[in-house]
Order: sequence, then C-alpha cells, then structure tokens
Amino acid sequence: MDIIMDGIETEILASTELNGHDVTTLDPSVLAVEPLGPNAVLQRDTEEHGAFSPALNLDDSPPEEFAGNSNGVAYYSSRSSSTASSSIERPKSPVVVVYKKAKFKPLPYATSQTGLVYDPRMRFHCEPLLDVPCPSCPISTSSVHPEDPQRIWAIYRALQGAKLVADPGNPVGDPALDYYMGRITARMATMQEICQVHTREHYQWVQGLEMYSDRELHEMAEHKKEYDSVYFSKNTFDCARLSAGSAIEACRAVCLRYVKNAIAVIRPPGHHAEGNSPMGFCFFNNVCIAARACQDEFGQHCRKVLILDWDVHHGNGVQRTFYDDPNVLYISLHVHEDGNFYPRGDEGDHLHCGQGLGLGKNVNIPWPKKGMRDADYLYAFQHVVMPIAQEFNPDLVIVSAGFDAAEGDMLGGCHVSPGGYAQMTHMLMSLADGKVAVCLEGGYNLQSIANSALAVTRTLMGEPPDRIEDMHPSTIGVNTVKLVERQQSNYWQCLYPKALDQSSPTSIYVERGHDMFRSWQANGLWGQHGLTPLFVYNETLSRSFKDQVMATPSYREHRPLLVIFHEPSLVKCFPHPRTGEVEMHNLSFADNPIKKYVDWAIEQGFAVIDVNCPKHITQQRDTGGYVPPDDEKVRIKRATDLAAYLWDNYIEVNNPSHVFLLGMGVPHAGLINLVKSNERCTEMVTKIVSFVAGTAIHSCKGATDDDLDKWYYQSSLVFVPEDHHFFTEVKKIKRRWGYLIKTHSDDLNTMMDHYMDQVTDMFLEDTEEWRTSQMN
Amino acid sequence: MDIIMDGIETEILASTELNGHDVTTLDPSVLAVEPLGPNAVLQRDTEEHGAFSPALNLDDSPPEEFAGNSNGVAYYSSRSSSTASSSIERPKSPVVVVYKKAKFKPLPYATSQTGLVYDPRMRFHCEPLLDVPCPSCPISTSSVHPEDPQRIWAIYRALQGAKLVADPGNPVGDPALDYYMGRITARMATMQEICQVHTREHYQWVQGLEMYSDRELHEMAEHKKEYDSVYFSKNTFDCARLSAGSAIEACRAVCLRYVKNAIAVIRPPGHHAEGNSPMGFCFFNNVCIAARACQDEFGQHCRKVLILDWDVHHGNGVQRTFYDDPNVLYISLHVHEDGNFYPRGDEGDHLHCGQGLGLGKNVNIPWPKKGMRDADYLYAFQHVVMPIAQEFNPDLVIVSAGFDAAEGDMLGGCHVSPGGYAQMTHMLMSLADGKVAVCLEGGYNLQSIANSALAVTRTLMGEPPDRIEDMHPSTIGVNTVKLVERQQSNYWQCLYPKALDQSSPTSIYVERGHDMFRSWQANGLWGQHGLTPLFVYNETLSRSFKDQVMATPSYREHRPLLVIFHEPSLVKCFPHPRTGEVEMHNLSFADNPIKKYVDWAIEQGFAVIDVNCPKHITQQRDTGGYVPPDDEKVRIKRATDLAAYLWDNYIEVNNPSHVFLLGMGVPHAGLINLVKSNERCTEMVTKIVSFVAGTAIHSCKGATDDDLDKWYYQSSLVFVPEDHHFFTEVKKIKRRWGYLIKTHSDDLNTMMDHYMDQVTDMFLEDTEEWRTSQMN
Repeated sequence: MDIIMDGIETEILASTELNGHDVTTLDPSVLAVEPLGPNAVLQRDTEEHGAFSPALNLDDSPPEEFAGNSNGVAYYSSRSSSTASSSIERPKSPVVVVYKKAKFKPLPYATSQTGLVYDPRMRFHCEPLLDVPCPSCPISTSSVHPEDPQRIWAIYRALQGAKLVADPGNPVGDPALDYYMGRITARMATMQEICQVHTREHYQWVQGLEMYSDRELHEMAEHKKEYDSVYFSKNTFDCARLSAGSAIEACRAVCLRYVKNAIAVIRPPGHHAEGNSPMGFCFFNNVCIAARACQDEFGQHCRKVLILDWDVHHGNGVQRTFYDDPNVLYISLHVHEDGNFYPRGDEGDHLHCGQGLGLGKNVNIPWPKKGMRDADYLYAFQHVVMPIAQEFNPDLVIVSAGFDAAEGDMLGGCHVSPGGYAQMTHMLMSLADGKVAVCLEGGYNLQSIANSALAVTRTLMGEPPDRIEDMHPSTIGVNTVKLVERQQSNYWQCLYPKALDQSSPTSIYVERGHDMFRSWQANGLWGQHGLTPLFVYNETLSRSFKDQVMATPSYREHRPLLVIFHEPSLVKCFPHPRTGEVEMHNLSFADNPIKKYVDWAIEQGFAVIDVNCPKHITQQRDTGGYVPPDDEKVRIKRATDLAAYLWDNYIEVNNPSHVFLLGMGVPHAGLINLVKSNERCTEMVTKIVSFVAGTAIHSCKGATDDDLDKWYYQSSLVFVPEDHHFFTEVKKIKRRWGYLIKTHSDDLNTMMDHYMDQVTDMFLEDTEEWRTSQMN
Repeated sequence: MDIIMDGIETEILASTELNGHDVTTLDPSVLAVEPLGPNAVLQRDTEEHGAFSPALNLDDSPPEEFAGNSNGVAYYSSRSSSTASSSIERPKSPVVVVYKKAKFKPLPYATSQTGLVYDPRMRFHCEPLLDVPCPSCPISTSSVHPEDPQRIWAIYRALQGAKLVADPGNPVGDPALDYYMGRITARMATMQEICQVHTREHYQWVQGLEMYSDRELHEMAEHKKEYDSVYFSKNTFDCARLSAGSAIEACRAVCLRYVKNAIAVIRPPGHHAEGNSPMGFCFFNNVCIAARACQDEFGQHCRKVLILDWDVHHGNGVQRTFYDDPNVLYISLHVHEDGNFYPRGDEGDHLHCGQGLGLGKNVNIPWPKKGMRDADYLYAFQHVVMPIAQEFNPDLVIVSAGFDAAEGDMLGGCHVSPGGYAQMTHMLMSLADGKVAVCLEGGYNLQSIANSALAVTRTLMGEPPDRIEDMHPSTIGVNTVKLVERQQSNYWQCLYPKALDQSSPTSIYVERGHDMFRSWQANGLWGQHGLTPLFVYNETLSRSFKDQVMATPSYREHRPLLVIFHEPSLVKCFPHPRTGEVEMHNLSFADNPIKKYVDWAIEQGFAVIDVNCPKHITQQRDTGGYVPPDDEKVRIKRATDLAAYLWDNYIEVNNPSHVFLLGMGVPHAGLINLVKSNERCTEMVTKIVSFVAGTAIHSCKGATDDDLDKWYYQSSLVFVPEDHHFFTEVKKIKRRWGYLIKTHSDDLNTMMDHYMDQVTDMFLEDTEEWRTSQMN
C-alpha cells in the first residue's frame, strides 16, 4: 500500500526569549493573534541586551531520510561542521521542522505540504520611537515607517484566515493537519553563512547596533549620509539574522524535499543589502545567503540557482553579489524611471547583463515608469523570464518576493493583482522540479501584501491561479521587454531575433538610408521637374544636408511660391523573422504625398522650394546601428534656422507674387517660428498650412505684433486628428492656434492625401487674379 | 472543521453487454488486464448486432451541489430535456460517476481528484480481419492497423502501473482511494449531441455500418475513394458514440468541478472527422461534440472554449467546425510539410486564421518538417500559444491530445518527450481556473503514448513537470513560430511586433531597396571610376536590371579584364522593437568588398565589368511587401544567361589580354556554366575564382572536352568554408570541383576581404608580362 496515513503529533515548539523578556509559547503563531507594532516594542525592557537564546535542544541528529521520522515530525539542528561538503558551522540553537510526509507515494510532490516560515520574533526590529522628538529632524516621529513590523503579521493572519495554517485550537490527530502548510521553524543565520555574502566588518557593524541608545540609532539612520534609507534598532541584528536564517531553512527544506515548496514570511528584507553596507531597509541579503548556503550544502544537487525578483525595486545587492557568477541567474523586474527610482543609478538598466563568466546571467527588466499592470508583468514572463529561465534550467528557484508592485502600494505605484502574482508563481513552478522558495522582500500596503502573499501561497499549494481579464500590455511595457529581449539575445539561444551587430567589420562604405534616399530622389524622380539643390550654408553641415533643399529654378521669378517643410519619406522593411536580417529587395521606399503637391504646384505654374527635414543628422563619425530620432526641440530649432536662412537668402530677396507655406509634422513649427519672428512675413505670406499628428501643435502669437494671432487665424489651415491630446488639454481654444480642422485619420500621409483638394483649391482661389493676369 | 474525510463506497458499476456477449463486471478496468487485440474481436459472435444496453438506472436526479452526495459518490444521468439552457435530450442509460469530494475545503482544487474516463468497450472497434485475403488488396491483412485497440489499454495500464488508479484489489474504505484518479463512467453520446457537429446523414451512415459484413466493410474502406484513411467495423458506431460521450462526460465533470481536471482515454479519435465524412481513423469529432455540449449545458459559465491540438496531424475537422466561431479558439501544432503531410492541402497552413466573427480564432503552427523536439514545442507555447490563450481567457480548455509527436512514433517522426508534454500541460493549467480536459486523439507507438499520457496525468494531478535539458529550438521551428506570430499579430493585442501592411495606400512611388541602391551606386561612388552601365537586352528586363551591369570604358581595349558576378550588398536595418517600423535613418547600407577589388583592378590598369545579381527581380506589378529570394535555380539560370550574353557581346568580340572571372555566392555558378558551355573560354580565361559559403559549389566538367576538369583544377581558386556540407557529403573530391581552399569564416564578405591579397597576387603574377610590356 502506497498510502501514508500516520497520525500526527503536532508538537510545534519554539522558545522566544527576547532581551530577557520570555515570550515562550507552544506555538509562535499564537503571538500573531495580537499585533506587535511600534508601541509593543516600546513597552519592552530596553535596558537588557540579551540575545535570543532558544532553550530546547531536542535532537541533534539530522533527519535520516526524506519525510523525517515516523511520527511525522522531524527535528534537525546543527549538522556537525565536519560534514564533508560544507565548512560552515551550523547554529547551535535547536531547530524544529514540523511537516508531514508526502501523503501518497505515487504523487510525492502533489501530496506534500507547502512550507511556511513565520516567527513573530522578526517583528522586534522596528524604528525607535524617541521620548523627546529629535530637534534636527523634520520628520514626525509618530509616523509609522513603511517597513513596519506588522507586515509579516498581516501576511500570516491572511494565511490563517484562509485556513491554510493550523490554528492553535487544532486538536492533535486532527486529519486536517494533513493539508495545512508545513511549519518550518525560523533560526538565526550563522556568521559563517552571512559572511559568504557580506564582509566580516559589515557583520560586526550590524552586531554592534545593539550597543547604541535609541537616540544614537536615530541620529545614525537619519543624519549620517552613508546610510541610505534604513533605520536601526537594538533588535536589528537578531531579526536580520533570523530573517536570513529563515530564508536558508525555507530553501533547505525545499531542496531536501521535506516540503514541496515554501514561503518565508520574513523581515527585515534583504535584496538591497550589499556586501559591506545596509541599504533600503535591508541588512543581510537573505536570498543571497540562502542561495550560497544551499549551493554549499547540496553541491551538484543545487548548483544552479535562479533568483527571480519581482519586488518593485531593483535588487542591487543581489546583482552585485552574483554579477560574475555563472551559476546564479538573477532576473529582476522593477521600476527604473531612467535611474531616478530607488535605488537609483544605472545599475538596474537593461545593459547590466553580468560580467566575466556571469555574462548573461543578470537580466534586468527596467520599467521606465510606474503604473505597470498584470499584463506587462505577464508579457515579460512569457517573452523573457520563462524562456531564459527554462534555458538556464535551475536546480532551485528563489523568489525575492516584494509585494510593492501590488495594486494599492503607494511606494511602488504599480497595479499587479493577486492573480498576477499567482500566474507568475505558477509559471515558476514548472522549473527545477517544482522546487520554489518564496522569500518576502518589500511591500508596504498591509492589505495588498496579505492578499498577494495569500494568492502566491494558494498557488504553491496547488490551486490554479486566477484568470487575468486584461492581457493587453502597455506600450512602454512592450517596448521595455523588447529592449531586454534584444539585449539578452546575445546570451540566450532561445531569444530571437538576435540583436544585429551595429557594425560590420568588412563594410567599407556605410550610408544611412535617409541620405541615400534623398540622393536617389534628387537624381531620379525629382529631376523630372528640374528641381535642383539650393546651397545651404549650415554649421552642422553633413552628408544629411546634401540635397535636402530642392527648388525649381523659377523661385526667382514673380510667381506664386510654395515652400514645403516636411518629414522624411517612409520606408518599409520586411526582416527575416528569425535572424532579423533584411535582404535588399525586402526594403520598400514609399514617397509621401508631398510629391503630389509638388506636381500640382508646378503644373499650376508655381515655383517650389521643397525641404526635407531629416529626423536625424548623420554624424561625421557614424558607427552605424540604431539611433533614436533627434530630440523634437533640436529638430524644431533646425527647421527654424533653416526657414530663416531660406527666407533671407532665397525668398524675401526675390519677388514672388504669393508665398504659401506648407508644414508637415515636426518641421511645421519652423514655419510658424518664421512668421512669429519676421514681421515682413505677414505681408508676403498668403497662407500657411500645417498638418500635425502625433507631435505638438505650435501657436502663433507675436511678442510685439498684437494682431499676429488674428492674421494667423485668418491665413492658416491646421489639420489635426480629432483625438489629438491638444483637444483634451487646452480648455479654451484661441485664435493663436490657427484655423483648426479636425481630421478622422491620425496618419500624416493619409491626412495630406485626403485634404489635398481643399488646400489646393484655396491656393487657386488666392492666386486667381495672378493666373488671369498671366493668361492675358 | 474544513476537512472532509468520509469513508468511500467505491461502487464502480458498469455493464458491458456487447453484441449479446455479456461482459458485465464490477469494474471495467478488470477487462484491461487482458489485451483485446484484433483476434479477440474476431472471436466475438458477429451474427448478433445488439447495441450496448447498460442495465442499471440508479438515480435520475442531477447532483445537487458540487462534489455530489455525502458518501462521496455521485450519480447522474439524463437531465430532463426541459432544462432551460439546453434542448438536448440526455441519454437514457444510467451513468455513474465515481469521484471523491475535495478533501480540504480551503484547497478545493488541489485536493480534488483528477478524472479518468476509460472503458474497455472502446476497444471493440478494430479493423476486420478477413478469413480469405482480399484478392484486390495488396496490403497484408495480417498487419495490425496503427489505430490499434491496444492503444487505450496501454495508457490505462501505464496509469495503473504508476498506481494512479484504484486496483480492483483495493478494499472498500481504503484511505488511498482518496488520492487515486476519480473514475468517470463512459457513456454513448446521443444523436442530438453528435448532430450539433455532424450532419444527420453522417450519423446515420455510421450507424448503418453494423449492417455490413466484414468483407463489405473492408471493400468500402480500402477500395472506395471517398474514404480517406479509415477502416470500418461492426462496432464502429457504438465505439465512436462511446468515445464522443466519454469526451463529453470528461468535460462536464471538469466544468461541474466534480473533478479538478480530467483525461479521457478514448478511441476512435475524432479531430479529422468532418461534418459529413469520416477521415483519418475518425468518425465523430469528440472534442467538437464535447465543446458544443458544454457550451449548451453551461451557457455563460462555459462560453469560451480553447481547443489545443498537439496531435502531430492538423485537426481539419475541428478547424472546419469552428472556423467562423468567435467563442472557440482552435490552436493546432502539427507537421505540415508544405501541405504534403496528412491530412494534406493548405488548410493547416499559418494563413488559415478563421473567418467572419471567428477571424483570429484559428491558429495553425505548421512545422515544415518532421523531427521537431521539445524545445520547438515549448518555444511555440511560450511565444504564441500561451500569449494568445491568456488573451482569449477561456472558460474551459480541451486538449486534442494525440501522442504521435512523441519520441518513438514512426508516423509522426518527431521527438517530444513525456517531460515536454508535461510542461505543455502545466502551462495550460494556468488557464480557465485550471479546468483542463485532455482527450486522446492519435499516437501509435504503444510505449510512447503510455509514457506521454502518464506524464500528462501526473502533471494534472499536481506533480511538477520534468525539466527539459535542451531548450534550443531549431531554426525551422523558430522560423515557423515567428511566421505565425507575425500573422496572428493582426488579431491578438499581445503579439508584437505587429505585421506591417504590405502596401501603403498613400504611397505613390514604391521602390525596392536593391533597385534604389544600385541606382545610387551608379550615380555616386561607382561613378568615381567612370563605370557606366552596359546595355543588356533581356526578356525579363525590369527596373531591377537597370544599372546592374557596369563597366569601365576600357573593356574594349587590349588589357586584362576582370569580370565580377556578385551578390547584392548588405543592408542593416534597426526597426523599432515594438512597432517593427523603420525610420529612414535607421537603415544602413554597407557595400561589399567587391568595391575593393574594383578599386585595385582599376589601379592596376585592368578593365572591369561588374555585375550585380539581384536575389529577386522586381515584378512589373509589384505590390510591395515581403518576397522570398528567387529560387536558387532561377538565379543560376539568370546568371548563366547573363554571362553568356556578356561573353558574346562584350568580351569575346573585344581583345582583352587576359580574362579573370570572379564569382561570389550563387552567381558564381553562372561563370562556371559559361566555361562549361563555351570552348573558347578555356583559351581566353586566365583564372576563375569563386567564393561560396552557404550555397552549393558547382563542378566544371565538360560533356565533350575531356580535359576541362583538368583545366579547371589548374585555373581556379575556390574558397569554401571548412564546415560546408560539401566536405561531408562528397566522398572523393575530384578535379572538377576546382582548386579548393578551406576557409575559417563562413561569411562571404569576410572571406573576400581576408583572401584578397592571395587572389590579387595571383592576378598580378599572371599579368606580369603584360604589365612589363606596358611600361616599355
């Protein structure tokens, strides 16, 4: 018979003698019924500094086999330091693991318990409340610090409320105990374990904190510049050791298959802590210490560890610890805000991929903004996290599980739902034969972290994750994931398309498409009408300016002149879907409707000056590769300068009968600036037409000329898509915005094509007199 | 107390009176101990045609609530046809569902059972064995048909071997029964249920099969053209109804949460069966019938159904049934072989995406070849299947689970491991609140299907899927998935980059890149040396041929002539990662090293004819968009014709002192063909140099000239990468392959750059005399 149905003795034993204040109880969870907030701590006797000294040592021998001894309760404690695989001395304190054997041998995983580490003693680390407010400190000392002791209690209570953990009232022998979470007792990490990740100086410094008074601790935390976002308390050392030790024990229990997976509800968090400094509420880097401890103890059985960090902050400490380690893959999803979000700087960007042997084993998914949702996180999991994780094929998965990206967390400002966390957990459970240990990091809204941790726990226990209704990732979410995908494709076989080399060593002449295209236009099609380049003296003269300004020779004559400032033509490109390479014939160049306007104008006897405004000016030392378009302000400045230059050199000095200005996209601002800065324009310019879609509309109001906006309103047509943000942002539309026409399409080419008749009819009307005079 | 620990009465009741041959037993699984092969069927009394007539009607009322009545056994049968949501009459036969309640209310899913439908009566459909061999039938009647009754038995036995199903020997009240699979009794689908998917004609035709003799059935199946890959038997109707009914009951039990999920070990399979015809071993389309039945019965609670088909064949019947249905998403992964793999034709290609309201709700992932592995399937799941499925957000997942893509299946020729199936199952379990019903389709290697189905079942029961070591998808796998991704990005928000429109309505002049580039070359850089286009009369003359042949005017003079046939230059293109759009300045054109050879030759006083051989000839009616390169044979023919034309018109008639031929890539074959077809060449050509990388090397052996290969060996240099398949495929390298030089690089540009000195030194040596004479 394969079934194991022992009665259980649920001897949950723990001793919590803290600072001489004995809080021994049968079950640490009993303590959890009453919250221990800052006040509770204040009531403690702060005179004595005795460390934790658990009293019982039940059994010194390690469990002999999976699932422990026959009564379903396993005890283990320090394995002797002579154990071959490890030189770490285990703690002397007794440790009790309470878990049940797998209930049905044919399904060893499914019928094992999920492990839980929770110990209310970790609530003793909290911000010291001062009797007398600190005079130099502007912050109200009565406000509760977000890294609040209640955080772990809130989670524990949620698990209890969902009836996933045994109640103190459960009778011994109750068959329901089979199905509750298996309790793993917290213990303090040893110095040896901690110093696998941290320096001895750092360890001793944290140890020394208990020597200071509350006021000194306050002074240090608030007014010393070397400490970034931390507070200190007399209990910091013990709590931080307990937090790290709990992470170790959760991971060990998973590796040993005592439990199928586990969640460690611990604090203080760890992922910001660096080798030699506390940071961001963190002292010892719990997940790093646990990863190293398991690698040391289990050798080849736990060689490769994935640390998946969904805390909303970048785990700088974890990244640094394993930056050159090929056996620890660190993947972090976090708000980055271009380096302005905590912990600030560029370390969390997508370009930090590890170094040396660890190259490619560091994956940052840096959200450029807050506000990310389930769909963004799951998009990242589907396209980057899981492909990479599956290829890495870890022996153990540790989740740095901050719940500060959760809906409701004000610090994080994101909107991940409990279902979203559950979906991510479910995906991670496909790795490492299901060996997943979830360790709490940040998360500051008590309700949000409780709901989130509960959803994660239920998933660990085998429940299906909730369905996600909105699976539409945001634009910036997709942009970010694609950026990471492209970067990481250098290191992971499973990611396609591969990033293209930015330079080809054997290429001799590299030419950017816009330069070539304009040259081709100048030589070919445009040549039909006899347009020739106008000389433009420009300080930033480069290849990109050659042939950009073309004119009919008739621009010197007394006839209507159409001046067009437009965006470059479109190119369509059909890359090979896997390699990303493009064969020459799979590029298509499509001229924009400007050509139709030019054709029309020449046919009507107008002179034409056509100005192509490139989005990017090729640099003299161009290395090839992707460049973003130049900044919109830079492009407007360029168009403005060019418009002034052309006006002075080629327009005002000649004798056009009419001047029509036509602007398309960003360059239209150059023409408006021309009118604003040059009083002669209102006399000479007959009409100014603009087509604007995704970019800003520019207004025309003179600094000295009070009537300029009136003139502009009467002399302009401004075509704008009806859903342009202008219409929601500008409350009262004034004349300076010109004569606005709302369009259905938001595509510049479509707009220009669609309204060509309206524009050209207006030009014809304006020039009727001149055309009649020409005929006579 | 939240625990439910009732003793169970495992009354597994079934009656299998088949064709008057009573095989009633306490448990249908008992039958499974002895395989029923074709012989077993032959021994049956084939004179009587009585249908199945299960005898017991235990309870007529539907179960009142989830998890049935208090003794853990639920009975249900036909619900009255007056049930508001459904007009289907349920079968009159009693149906017994044996399952246990969820064992722990806080974890209703995790502690529920996985359902199993298996009924040995489905083994009675098998190919009739004839007493006297069929004279017109070349196939040996003694060979066992792959769709063998033992298939379902093999799977059942594997589940039993893994101790996942209760043994007949399990005592009533055995607590282990808690953990076994919950048995769901098979029943026959009703006519009404079947005719939701099939025509009445088809139903009646299958019903009529039992009227024929074995010989008549054989005749029909083997020699009537309208029947494609099926056999018929007297029991076909009953077995097919039982198979469809079992699929319904598995899905119903999942929808009703009687079980957490289920596997239906059924046959005959269904996914090829179309509305009005049997096909590919299939009669009634089990999964379609089950999907419709659940939609009818559960209304809004089961509106959206995902049918995921990992059978190695395309489920044409499923696709057709739901092609315009927006509420059934059909996703199929199958070998397609460009329409040559069963069921053949283009219906399984990636372009079939549904129609009408169902557009986008049909997703084919058509492998172009056999041999696909776990990594390919999981790549498809990660990048296409799961993103689409999550966005669709189904209420129920039905898996058309053929196991013929499994390692060991000769028909499928693929290599999916049990772990691969488990990983796919695990991913699907994140959907629909875990409501997954797996229904057997094909799969013909008994060991493979048993192992695969066992892995799937263990995953359904909560075990973690096995780790996959090799997560490196194949090139064709990635190509296929990317193709599907691009196609489906039109319909699914979650897929990026979006497919670009092939045409832009407002573009006026569309020019392909290779045409423009050559024009730019001709006008610009190449013009430095005074190269001008040579006139080429060509029947397929098009824009693509303009400027492709350029020559120094000196080609008419008595001096060395270098003739180069080369591939087009490279373009590098950096699209926006999300939109896939390319801004003009993010194209880079890189000339290939040909330019260096031309520069060198002109400097040495050589004449040059430079021929660019486009990979694609722009058609007169070019609609833009992606086109693959023209076929290699077509390109060789084009190069051969052009070489002959140039020889006749511009080379032989003039008076070069030497002729050097230089071929790069595919076009090099044109120069070799020139030498082979024209005897004058060996006299005039001094050297012929080829650079070949990923494409075929061409040999030079004359039909009439016995010494041609000798000449070629002495006059050639052929640069080939050392890992070119030529070196593994060609056993004995003969002179006709030329003077081969193995290169380290397999990149044509790098090769040409690296060996330029060697080539040009040879040219200098060959022309030393001439150059000396010129100096004098």
